[in-house]
Amino acid sequence: MSGYFSEARSAETVIDRIGAGADPRLRRIMTSLITHLHGFIKDVALTEKEWEQAIGFLTETGRMCSGTRQEFILLSDVLGASMLVDAINHRWPAPATESTVFGPFHVDGAPVRQMGESISLDGKGEPCLFRGRVLDTDGNPVAGASVDVWSDNADGFYDVQQPDIQPPFNNRGVFVTGEDGRYAFRGVKPVSYPIPSDGPVGRMLAALGRHPWRPAHMHFLIGAPGFERLITHIFVAGDSYLDSDAVFGVKDRLIVDFKPADNPTDGWLAEYDFVLVRRTQ
Amino acid sequence: MSGYFSEARSAETVIDRIGAGADPRLRRIMTSLITHLHGFIKDVALTEKEWEQAIGFLTETGRMCSGTRQEFILLSDVLGASMLVDAINHRWPAPATESTVFGPFHVDGAPVRQMGESISLDGKGEPCLFRGRVLDTDGNPVAGASVDVWSDNADGFYDVQQPDIQPPFNNRGVFVTGEDGRYAFRGVKPVSYPIPSDGPVGRMLAALGRHPWRPAHMHFLIGAPGFERLITHIFVAGDSYLDSDAVFGVKDRLIVDFKPADNPTDGWLAEYDFVLVRRTQ
Repeated sequence: MSGYFSEARSAETVIDRIGAGADPRLRRIMTSLITHLHGFIKDVALTEKEWEQAIGFLTETGRMCSGTRQEFILLSDVLGASMLVDAINHRWPAPATESTVFGPFHVDGAPVRQMGESISLDGKGEPCLFRGRVLDTDGNPVAGASVDVWSDNADGFYDVQQPDIQPPFNNRGVFVTGEDGRYAFRGVKPVSYPIPSDGPVGRMLAALGRHPWRPAHMHFLIGAPGFERLITHIFVAGDSYLDSDAVFGVKDRLIVDFKPADNPTDGWLAEYDFVLVRRTQ
Repeated sequence: MSGYFSEARSAETVIDRIGAGADPRLRRIMTSLITHLHGFIKDVALTEKEWEQAIGFLTETGRMCSGTRQEFILLSDVLGASMLVDAINHRWPAPATESTVFGPFHVDGAPVRQMGESISLDGKGEPCLFRGRVLDTDGNPVAGASVDVWSDNADGFYDVQQPDIQPPFNNRGVFVTGEDGRYAFRGVKPVSYPIPSDGPVGRMLAALGRHPWRPAHMHFLIGAPGFERLITHIFVAGDSYLDSDAVFGVKDRLIVDFKPADNPTDGWLAEYDFVLVRRTQ
């Protein structure tokens, strides 16, 4: 039998070409990728026109990427791939807080602020007090935890999407817990917003009869020495898009009732305790 | 049970989101794509770092695409996806000539030349006479067939890769058969060449222990009224890369003995008859 390409043995022929010296993990990944890619093409009997459309879609997705726009991450997000990778890599049992999708809007180097300080620099939105504790799985407070938070404003935009708004780091800040493990900051109640939908991923969602909206949420990235890094959101209970988050980020235990604060000038109150998992190695 | 994302039902959750009004073919394709994408991620338990590398690879592949470079087609080619799509869409029984990968180097609008004329405008290479017939599956000559051919020169480059060489359309031409179905043209004996390997696809091949070379070949695109369009190559017998074509294009029946021509000034002689399939609809 010739080793040339045939429809029947298509994936095997490509896999057999991997050299003996290839990294074993890369070999494992590419073997599975090639098997699934060929399986997909055979399963749907992809036409040449559809293949051309796929090449065009990927090319356009690439063209859409820039310093402030990552269309391939968006694609991974709306196909549930980002959440699946997140799930596989953070199989933490309760009571650990569940992780969720990182998203493309985190910015390194947000200022460390005083506990209780406001992150809303433009004042756009309904005031909201966020507070709670960072705990270990035994319920003990975690001191020295860095609580990095970011959200949109009432326009539904992150600061990086509104570069004209000054000063920088609107609705961003890092808060470091003391011995009591408590955090507290003021900001605005997040609002639901559409993911950027003026590119190929937005057009794909439209063709699939899907909307681009995410339910309102505050992002948290929490790190502490000796603990696994936690990347998660808290979602605003009652949001219309909780059941249809465009990027599949919602989890039951991350939905929080935003209540009127005791002190009316605080506006809303969102209370949530985060439980970190101790690093095992 | 909540409809929120879970590792166990990850693909189903994403597929369930496709709207009732979506085009049925698109639904079928996306259902299979999402199933295989999630199957792949679970199969290899993709790490977050590996996911980041995949996003980086796709982004870089996009950045490499330009008017004269299509890195996503190259990616499809080296993964055998292009050949698989070709195979699925051209299941022609013998004696029909087999198709093979189109490749990224065809140019529309090459000049129609006189039968027997030369396509080698730069004279780089060993002279070669190409001739044969275009037939139907009963062995009858096909008149009025357009035989569009293209190849590299002795540098291993197509004209679009050497834009400084003038006049344009070096090693390209279109020949139209008469009543006898015969074609003939002069050119150079093709040489093996590496596909562009200075981008992410080239680095992927290197990591997989694969070389980027294609065995020497002449491209043919043959169309005739009432027949299926045939896209194929003829390969030079004895080439060192016949067993390891970087894009898996080789098929037994497409390998041709290039012999010394009867008339020494013709150099080499490559004779091949192409058999077209009648269009059924």
